[in-house]
Amino acid sequence: MARHTPKVQRLIDALRILPSVGPKSAQRIAYQLLERNRDGGLQLADALTSAMQGVGSCASCRTFCEQDVCSICRDEQRANARQLCVVASSADLYAIEHTGMFHGRYFVLRGLLSPLDGIGPQQLGLELFAQQLQSGHYDEVILATNPTVEGEATAHFIAELCRQSNIAVSRLAQGMPVGGELEYVDGNTLSYAFSGRKQV
Amino acid sequence: MARHTPKVQRLIDALRILPSVGPKSAQRIAYQLLERNRDGGLQLADALTSAMQGVGSCASCRTFCEQDVCSICRDEQRANARQLCVVASSADLYAIEHTGMFHGRYFVLRGLLSPLDGIGPQQLGLELFAQQLQSGHYDEVILATNPTVEGEATAHFIAELCRQSNIAVSRLAQGMPVGGELEYVDGNTLSYAFSGRKQV
Repeated sequence: MARHTPKVQRLIDALRILPSVGPKSAQRIAYQLLERNRDGGLQLADALTSAMQGVGSCASCRTFCEQDVCSICRDEQRANARQLCVVASSADLYAIEHTGMFHGRYFVLRGLLSPLDGIGPQQLGLELFAQQLQSGHYDEVILATNPTVEGEATAHFIAELCRQSNIAVSRLAQGMPVGGELEYVDGNTLSYAFSGRKQV
Repeated sequence: MARHTPKVQRLIDALRILPSVGPKSAQRIAYQLLERNRDGGLQLADALTSAMQGVGSCASCRTFCEQDVCSICRDEQRANARQLCVVASSADLYAIEHTGMFHGRYFVLRGLLSPLDGIGPQQLGLELFAQQLQSGHYDEVILATNPTVEGEATAHFIAELCRQSNIAVSRLAQGMPVGGELEYVDGNTLSYAFSGRKQV
Protein backbone atom coordinates (compact mmCIF):
# COMPACT_ATOMS: atom_id res chain seq x y z
CA MET A 1 0.00 0.00 0.00
CA ALA A 2 1.28 3.43 -0.89
CA ARG A 3 2.35 5.70 1.95
CA HIS A 4 2.68 9.45 2.12
CA THR A 5 6.15 10.64 1.18
CA PRO A 6 8.31 11.45 4.25
CA LYS A 7 7.96 15.23 3.94
CA VAL A 8 4.22 15.02 3.48
CA GLN A 9 3.93 12.65 6.47
CA ARG A 10 6.02 15.03 8.58
CA LEU A 11 3.78 17.95 7.59
CA ILE A 12 0.65 15.93 8.47
CA ASP A 13 2.14 15.07 11.89
CA ALA A 14 3.18 18.68 12.54
CA LEU A 15 -0.30 20.02 11.66
CA ARG A 16 -1.74 17.90 14.50
CA ILE A 17 -0.55 20.51 17.04
CA LEU A 18 -3.30 22.85 15.80
CA PRO A 19 -6.44 22.79 17.97
CA SER A 20 -9.14 20.36 16.78
CA VAL A 21 -7.08 19.06 13.86
CA GLY A 22 -7.14 15.24 13.77
CA PRO A 23 -5.36 12.89 11.36
CA LYS A 24 -8.01 13.25 8.60
CA SER A 25 -8.12 17.06 8.74
CA ALA A 26 -4.32 17.23 8.87
CA GLN A 27 -4.11 15.16 5.68
CA ARG A 28 -6.72 17.34 3.99
CA ILE A 29 -4.89 20.55 4.96
CA ALA A 30 -1.53 19.18 3.82
CA TYR A 31 -2.88 18.14 0.40
CA GLN A 32 -4.79 21.35 -0.03
CA LEU A 33 -1.66 23.44 0.60
CA LEU A 34 0.50 21.24 -1.63
CA GLU A 35 -2.04 21.25 -4.45
CA ARG A 36 -3.29 24.80 -4.36
CA ASN A 37 -1.38 27.15 -2.13
CA ARG A 38 2.35 26.54 -1.76
CA ASP A 39 3.06 30.27 -1.54
CA GLY A 40 0.56 30.59 1.31
CA GLY A 41 2.17 27.61 3.03
CA LEU A 42 5.60 29.22 2.83
CA GLN A 43 4.25 32.54 4.11
CA LEU A 44 2.62 30.72 7.02
CA ALA A 45 5.92 28.98 7.81
CA ASP A 46 7.69 32.32 7.82
CA ALA A 47 5.05 34.02 9.97
CA LEU A 48 5.16 31.12 12.45
CA THR A 49 8.94 31.26 12.77
CA SER A 50 9.01 35.01 13.20
CA ALA A 51 6.20 35.04 15.80
CA MET A 52 7.45 32.04 17.81
CA GLN A 53 10.96 33.50 17.97
CA GLY A 54 10.25 37.23 17.99
CA VAL A 55 7.30 37.73 20.35
CA GLY A 56 8.35 38.21 23.97
CA SER A 57 6.49 39.69 26.90
CA CYS A 58 6.11 43.15 28.37
CA ALA A 59 8.43 43.77 31.33
CA SER A 60 5.62 45.54 33.16
CA CYS A 61 2.36 43.70 32.41
CA ARG A 62 3.60 40.44 30.82
CA THR A 63 1.36 40.67 27.74
CA PHE A 64 2.75 39.62 24.34
CA CYS A 65 5.11 42.29 23.13
CA GLU A 66 7.92 42.73 20.62
CA GLN A 67 9.69 45.49 22.54
CA ASP A 68 10.61 45.80 26.23
CA VAL A 69 7.35 47.41 27.23
CA CYS A 70 3.96 47.08 25.47
CA SER A 71 1.96 49.90 23.90
CA ILE A 72 -0.58 49.97 26.75
CA CYS A 73 2.11 50.33 29.42
CA ARG A 74 3.81 53.04 27.31
CA ASP A 75 0.52 54.95 26.85
CA GLU A 76 0.86 58.30 28.67
CA GLN A 77 -2.88 58.62 29.18
CA ARG A 78 -2.80 55.41 31.16
CA ALA A 79 0.42 56.16 33.05
CA ASN A 80 -1.49 57.56 36.04
CA ALA A 81 -4.34 55.08 35.99
CA ARG A 82 -5.21 53.88 39.52
CA GLN A 83 -6.92 50.65 38.41
CA LEU A 84 -5.12 47.40 37.62
CA CYS A 85 -7.01 44.65 35.79
CA VAL A 86 -5.69 41.09 36.21
CA VAL A 87 -6.37 38.71 33.28
CA ALA A 88 -5.27 35.16 32.54
CA SER A 89 -4.06 35.70 28.96
CA SER A 90 -3.31 38.31 26.31
CA ALA A 91 -6.43 37.12 24.45
CA ASP A 92 -8.54 38.13 27.48
CA LEU A 93 -6.77 41.52 27.55
CA TYR A 94 -7.72 42.13 23.90
CA ALA A 95 -11.32 41.08 24.57
CA ILE A 96 -11.55 43.72 27.34
CA GLU A 97 -9.78 46.36 25.23
CA HIS A 98 -12.26 45.61 22.48
CA THR A 99 -15.15 46.76 24.68
CA GLY A 100 -13.45 50.15 25.13
CA MET A 101 -14.78 50.24 28.72
CA PHE A 102 -11.54 50.10 30.65
CA HIS A 103 -8.81 52.73 30.65
CA GLY A 104 -6.50 51.44 33.38
CA ARG A 105 -3.48 49.15 33.28
CA TYR A 106 -3.34 45.37 33.01
CA PHE A 107 -1.45 42.48 34.50
CA VAL A 108 -1.38 39.28 32.44
CA LEU A 109 -0.90 36.06 34.41
CA ARG A 110 -0.31 33.91 31.31
CA GLY A 111 -1.97 30.97 32.99
CA LEU A 112 -3.99 30.11 36.09
CA LEU A 113 -2.90 28.44 39.33
CA SER A 114 -2.78 24.70 38.76
CA PRO A 115 -0.48 22.98 41.27
CA LEU A 116 -0.90 19.56 39.58
CA ASP A 117 0.53 21.00 36.35
CA GLY A 118 3.33 22.73 38.26
CA ILE A 119 1.85 26.20 37.78
CA GLY A 120 2.31 28.11 41.03
CA PRO A 121 2.50 31.82 41.97
CA GLN A 122 6.01 32.07 40.50
CA GLN A 123 4.92 30.92 37.02
CA LEU A 124 2.17 33.56 37.04
CA GLY A 125 4.65 36.36 37.78
CA LEU A 126 3.00 37.15 41.12
CA GLU A 127 6.28 38.49 42.55
CA LEU A 128 6.28 41.20 39.91
CA PHE A 129 2.59 41.75 40.66
CA ALA A 130 3.29 42.15 44.41
CA GLN A 131 5.99 44.73 43.65
CA GLN A 132 3.51 46.72 41.58
CA LEU A 133 0.99 46.58 44.44
CA GLN A 134 3.57 47.87 46.89
CA SER A 135 4.51 50.77 44.62
CA GLY A 136 1.31 52.47 45.86
CA HIS A 137 0.37 53.18 42.28
CA TYR A 138 -3.05 51.50 42.37
CA ASP A 139 -6.30 52.02 44.29
CA GLU A 140 -8.19 49.04 42.92
CA VAL A 141 -7.40 45.64 41.49
CA ILE A 142 -10.07 44.18 39.16
CA LEU A 143 -9.93 40.38 38.97
CA ALA A 144 -10.99 39.36 35.44
CA THR A 145 -10.02 35.69 35.43
CA ASN A 146 -12.56 33.21 34.00
CA PRO A 147 -15.36 32.11 36.35
CA THR A 148 -14.04 28.51 36.32
CA VAL A 149 -12.55 26.47 39.19
CA GLU A 150 -8.97 27.48 38.34
CA GLY A 151 -10.01 31.07 37.63
CA GLU A 152 -11.81 31.38 40.97
CA ALA A 153 -8.91 29.79 42.89
CA THR A 154 -6.45 32.17 41.25
CA ALA A 155 -8.71 35.18 41.91
CA HIS A 156 -9.01 34.13 45.55
CA PHE A 157 -5.22 33.87 45.90
CA ILE A 158 -4.63 37.29 44.35
CA ALA A 159 -7.41 38.88 46.41
CA GLU A 160 -5.49 37.79 49.55
CA LEU A 161 -2.33 39.50 48.26
CA CYS A 162 -4.28 42.71 47.67
CA ARG A 163 -5.88 42.65 51.10
CA GLN A 164 -2.43 42.35 52.68
CA SER A 165 -1.47 45.53 50.82
CA ASN A 166 -4.77 47.24 51.73
CA ILE A 167 -5.87 47.63 48.12
CA ALA A 168 -9.54 47.32 47.12
CA VAL A 169 -10.33 44.23 45.07
CA SER A 170 -13.28 43.60 42.76
CA ARG A 171 -14.38 40.70 40.61
CA LEU A 172 -16.30 40.84 37.29
CA ALA A 173 -20.08 40.49 37.79
CA GLN A 174 -21.60 37.05 37.20
CA GLY A 175 -25.15 36.55 35.91
CA MET A 176 -27.21 36.23 32.77
CA PRO A 177 -25.30 36.97 29.55
CA VAL A 178 -26.85 39.85 27.56
CA GLY A 179 -29.27 38.39 25.01
CA GLY A 180 -29.31 35.04 26.83
CA GLU A 181 -32.45 33.03 27.51
CA LEU A 182 -33.43 31.89 31.02
CA GLU A 183 -34.53 28.54 29.68
CA TYR A 184 -31.12 27.69 28.27
CA VAL A 185 -28.82 29.19 30.88
CA ASP A 186 -27.14 26.66 33.19
CA GLY A 187 -28.33 26.33 36.81
CA ASN A 188 -25.19 27.78 38.43
CA THR A 189 -25.38 30.94 36.34
CA LEU A 190 -29.07 31.30 37.10
CA SER A 191 -28.39 30.92 40.85
CA TYR A 192 -25.74 33.65 40.66
CA ALA A 193 -28.08 35.90 38.70
CA PHE A 194 -30.77 35.39 41.37
CA SER A 195 -28.60 36.00 44.38
CA GLY A 196 -26.90 38.97 42.72
CA ARG A 197 -30.17 40.63 41.65
CA LYS A 198 -30.29 44.44 41.68
CA GLN A 199 -33.10 46.78 42.69
CA VAL A 200 -34.54 48.70 39.72
CA MET B 1 -7.65 50.32 21.77
CA ALA B 2 -4.79 47.86 21.91
CA ARG B 3 -3.84 46.04 18.72
CA HIS B 4 -2.01 42.77 18.19
CA THR B 5 1.74 43.23 17.82
CA PRO B 6 2.84 43.19 14.15
CA LYS B 7 4.25 39.64 14.25
CA VAL B 8 1.16 38.28 15.98
CA GLN B 9 -1.07 40.03 13.46
CA ARG B 10 0.97 38.61 10.59
CA LEU B 11 0.64 35.11 12.06
CA ILE B 12 -3.13 35.54 12.44
CA ASP B 13 -3.40 36.68 8.81
CA ALA B 14 -1.23 33.82 7.56
CA LEU B 15 -3.28 31.21 9.45
CA ARG B 16 -6.37 32.27 7.47
CA ILE B 17 -5.13 30.22 4.49
CA LEU B 18 -6.02 27.05 6.39
CA PRO B 19 -9.41 25.60 5.42
CA SER B 20 -12.32 26.73 7.64
CA VAL B 21 -10.13 29.03 9.77
CA GLY B 22 -11.77 32.45 10.16
CA PRO B 23 -10.46 35.52 12.02
CA LYS B 24 -11.57 34.27 15.46
CA SER B 25 -10.10 30.78 15.08
CA ALA B 26 -6.90 32.22 13.64
CA GLN B 27 -6.50 34.43 16.72
CA ARG B 28 -7.22 31.48 19.03
CA ILE B 29 -4.63 29.30 17.25
CA ALA B 30 -2.00 32.06 17.28
CA TYR B 31 -2.42 32.69 21.01
CA GLN B 32 -2.53 29.01 21.82
CA LEU B 33 0.77 28.41 20.01
CA LEU B 34 2.42 31.50 21.54
CA GLU B 35 1.25 30.64 25.05
CA ARG B 36 1.65 26.90 25.13
CA ASN B 37 3.52 25.40 22.21
CA ARG B 38 6.26 27.51 20.65
CA ASP B 39 8.35 24.41 19.90
CA GLY B 40 5.43 22.84 18.06
CA GLY B 41 4.92 26.08 16.12
CA LEU B 42 8.56 26.10 15.03
CA GLN B 43 8.38 22.43 14.03
CA LEU B 44 5.26 23.14 11.99
CA ALA B 45 7.04 26.05 10.27
CA ASP B 46 9.95 23.78 9.41
CA ALA B 47 7.70 20.97 8.14
CA LEU B 48 5.73 23.44 6.01
CA THR B 49 8.86 24.88 4.42
CA SER B 50 10.36 21.50 3.70
CA ALA B 51 7.12 20.09 2.21
CA MET B 52 6.22 23.18 0.14
CA GLN B 53 9.73 23.34 -1.32
CA GLY B 54 10.71 19.66 -1.40
CA VAL B 55 7.64 17.80 -2.66
CA GLY B 56 7.51 17.54 -6.43
CA SER B 57 5.58 15.20 -8.69
CA CYS B 58 6.26 11.78 -10.21
CA ALA B 59 7.49 12.01 -13.82
CA SER B 60 5.26 9.09 -14.75
CA CYS B 61 1.98 9.39 -12.80
CA ARG B 62 2.16 12.99 -11.46
CA THR B 63 1.42 12.04 -7.82
CA PHE B 64 3.28 13.87 -5.02
CA CYS B 65 6.80 12.53 -4.88
CA GLU B 66 10.21 13.53 -3.51
CA GLN B 67 12.23 11.65 -6.12
CA ASP B 68 11.90 11.51 -9.92
CA VAL B 69 9.50 8.58 -9.90
CA CYS B 70 7.12 7.57 -7.09
CA SER B 71 7.17 4.30 -5.16
CA ILE B 72 4.12 2.92 -7.01
CA CYS B 73 5.63 3.55 -10.44
CA ARG B 74 8.92 1.99 -9.25
CA ASP B 75 7.12 -1.10 -7.85
CA GLU B 76 8.27 -4.11 -9.95
CA GLN B 77 5.08 -6.04 -9.23
CA ARG B 78 3.11 -3.25 -10.86
CA ALA B 79 5.52 -2.70 -13.75
CA ASN B 80 3.52 -4.99 -16.05
CA ALA B 81 0.07 -3.96 -14.86
CA ARG B 82 -2.34 -3.55 -17.80
CA GLN B 83 -4.79 -1.28 -15.92
CA LEU B 84 -4.41 2.47 -15.52
CA CYS B 85 -6.57 4.27 -12.96
CA VAL B 86 -7.14 8.01 -13.49
CA VAL B 87 -7.75 10.07 -10.32
CA ALA B 88 -8.10 13.80 -9.68
CA SER B 89 -5.66 14.09 -6.76
CA SER B 90 -3.03 12.27 -4.73
CA ALA B 91 -5.53 12.14 -1.88
CA ASP B 92 -7.87 10.09 -4.09
CA LEU B 93 -4.96 7.80 -5.03
CA TYR B 94 -4.28 7.13 -1.32
CA ALA B 95 -7.97 6.46 -0.68
CA ILE B 96 -7.97 3.77 -3.41
CA GLU B 97 -4.63 2.33 -2.25
CA HIS B 98 -6.12 2.15 1.23
CA THR B 99 -8.78 -0.32 0.03
CA GLY B 100 -6.04 -2.66 -1.23
CA MET B 101 -8.34 -3.57 -4.18
CA PHE B 102 -6.32 -2.21 -7.07
CA HIS B 103 -2.90 -3.39 -8.17
CA GLY B 104 -2.44 -1.46 -11.41
CA ARG B 105 -0.85 1.92 -12.12
CA TYR B 106 -2.26 5.41 -11.61
CA PHE B 107 -2.40 8.71 -13.41
CA VAL B 108 -3.03 11.78 -11.22
CA LEU B 109 -4.68 14.74 -12.98
CA ARG B 110 -4.08 17.15 -10.07
CA GLY B 111 -7.29 18.96 -10.86
CA LEU B 112 -10.39 18.62 -13.04
CA LEU B 113 -11.29 20.37 -16.30
CA SER B 114 -12.60 23.82 -15.49
CA PRO B 115 -12.27 26.19 -18.48
CA LEU B 116 -13.50 29.19 -16.46
CA ASP B 117 -10.59 28.75 -14.02
CA GLY B 118 -8.15 28.27 -16.89
CA ILE B 119 -7.74 24.53 -16.23
CA GLY B 120 -7.62 22.78 -19.60
CA PRO B 121 -6.17 19.45 -20.85
CA GLN B 122 -2.64 20.85 -20.66
CA GLN B 123 -2.88 21.67 -16.93
CA LEU B 124 -4.05 18.10 -16.25
CA GLY B 125 -1.02 16.59 -18.01
CA LEU B 126 -3.18 14.94 -20.66
CA GLU B 127 -0.32 15.05 -23.22
CA LEU B 128 1.73 12.80 -20.93
CA PHE B 129 -1.39 10.66 -20.48
CA ALA B 130 -1.89 10.32 -24.25
CA GLN B 131 1.74 9.22 -24.64
CA GLN B 132 1.20 6.52 -22.04
CA LEU B 133 -1.93 5.33 -23.86
CA GLN B 134 -0.02 5.12 -27.15
CA SER B 135 2.78 3.07 -25.56
CA GLY B 136 0.42 0.08 -25.81
CA HIS B 137 1.13 -0.70 -22.18
CA TYR B 138 -2.49 -0.66 -21.01
CA ASP B 139 -5.64 -2.67 -21.80
CA GLU B 140 -8.04 -0.71 -19.62
CA VAL B 141 -8.38 2.80 -18.25
CA ILE B 142 -10.47 3.11 -15.06
CA LEU B 143 -11.91 6.61 -14.61
CA ALA B 144 -12.07 7.34 -10.87
CA THR B 145 -12.83 11.07 -10.86
CA ASN B 146 -15.56 12.28 -8.49
CA PRO B 147 -19.16 11.89 -9.68
CA THR B 148 -19.59 15.69 -9.80
CA VAL B 149 -20.17 17.95 -12.81
CA GLU B 150 -16.45 18.66 -13.29
CA GLY B 151 -15.54 15.04 -12.58
CA GLU B 152 -18.03 13.74 -15.15
CA ALA B 153 -16.92 16.26 -17.78
CA THR B 154 -13.28 15.32 -17.24
CA ALA B 155 -14.10 11.60 -17.37
CA HIS B 156 -16.02 12.14 -20.61
CA PHE B 157 -13.08 13.98 -22.17
CA ILE B 158 -10.59 11.28 -21.17
CA ALA B 159 -12.92 8.49 -22.33
CA GLU B 160 -12.82 10.08 -25.81
CA LEU B 161 -9.00 10.00 -25.80
CA CYS B 162 -9.07 6.32 -24.87
CA ARG B 163 -11.58 5.39 -27.56
CA GLN B 164 -9.35 7.07 -30.14
CA SER B 165 -6.55 4.75 -28.96
CA ASN B 166 -8.90 1.73 -28.88
CA ILE B 167 -8.44 1.15 -25.16
CA ALA B 168 -11.32 -0.07 -22.99
CA VAL B 169 -12.63 2.53 -20.54
CA SER B 170 -14.60 1.99 -17.35
CA ARG B 171 -16.05 4.28 -14.71
CA LEU B 172 -16.49 3.56 -10.98
CA ALA B 173 -19.96 2.19 -10.20
CA GLN B 174 -22.54 4.64 -8.88
CA GLY B 175 -25.30 3.63 -6.48
CA MET B 176 -26.14 3.22 -2.82
CA PRO B 177 -23.17 3.66 -0.45
CA VAL B 178 -22.57 0.56 1.69
CA GLY B 179 -24.40 1.00 4.99
CA GLY B 180 -26.50 3.84 3.53
CA GLU B 181 -30.23 4.19 4.07
CA LEU B 182 -32.70 4.50 1.18
CA GLU B 183 -34.65 7.12 3.05
CA TYR B 184 -31.72 9.49 3.34
CA VAL B 185 -29.96 8.95 0.02
CA ASP B 186 -30.44 11.77 -2.53
CA GLY B 187 -32.73 11.26 -5.50
CA ASN B 188 -29.99 11.20 -8.15
CA THR B 189 -28.09 8.47 -6.36
CA LEU B 190 -31.27 6.46 -5.91
CA SER B 191 -32.09 6.80 -9.63
CA TYR B 192 -28.61 5.56 -10.51
CA ALA B 193 -28.94 2.67 -8.08
CA PHE B 194 -32.25 1.70 -9.67
CA SER B 195 -31.19 1.88 -13.29
CA GLY B 196 -27.90 0.11 -12.50
CA ARG B 197 -29.54 -2.74 -10.54
CA LYS B 198 -27.98 -6.20 -10.84
CA GLN B 199 -29.64 -9.60 -11.03
CA VAL B 200 -29.03 -11.68 -7.90
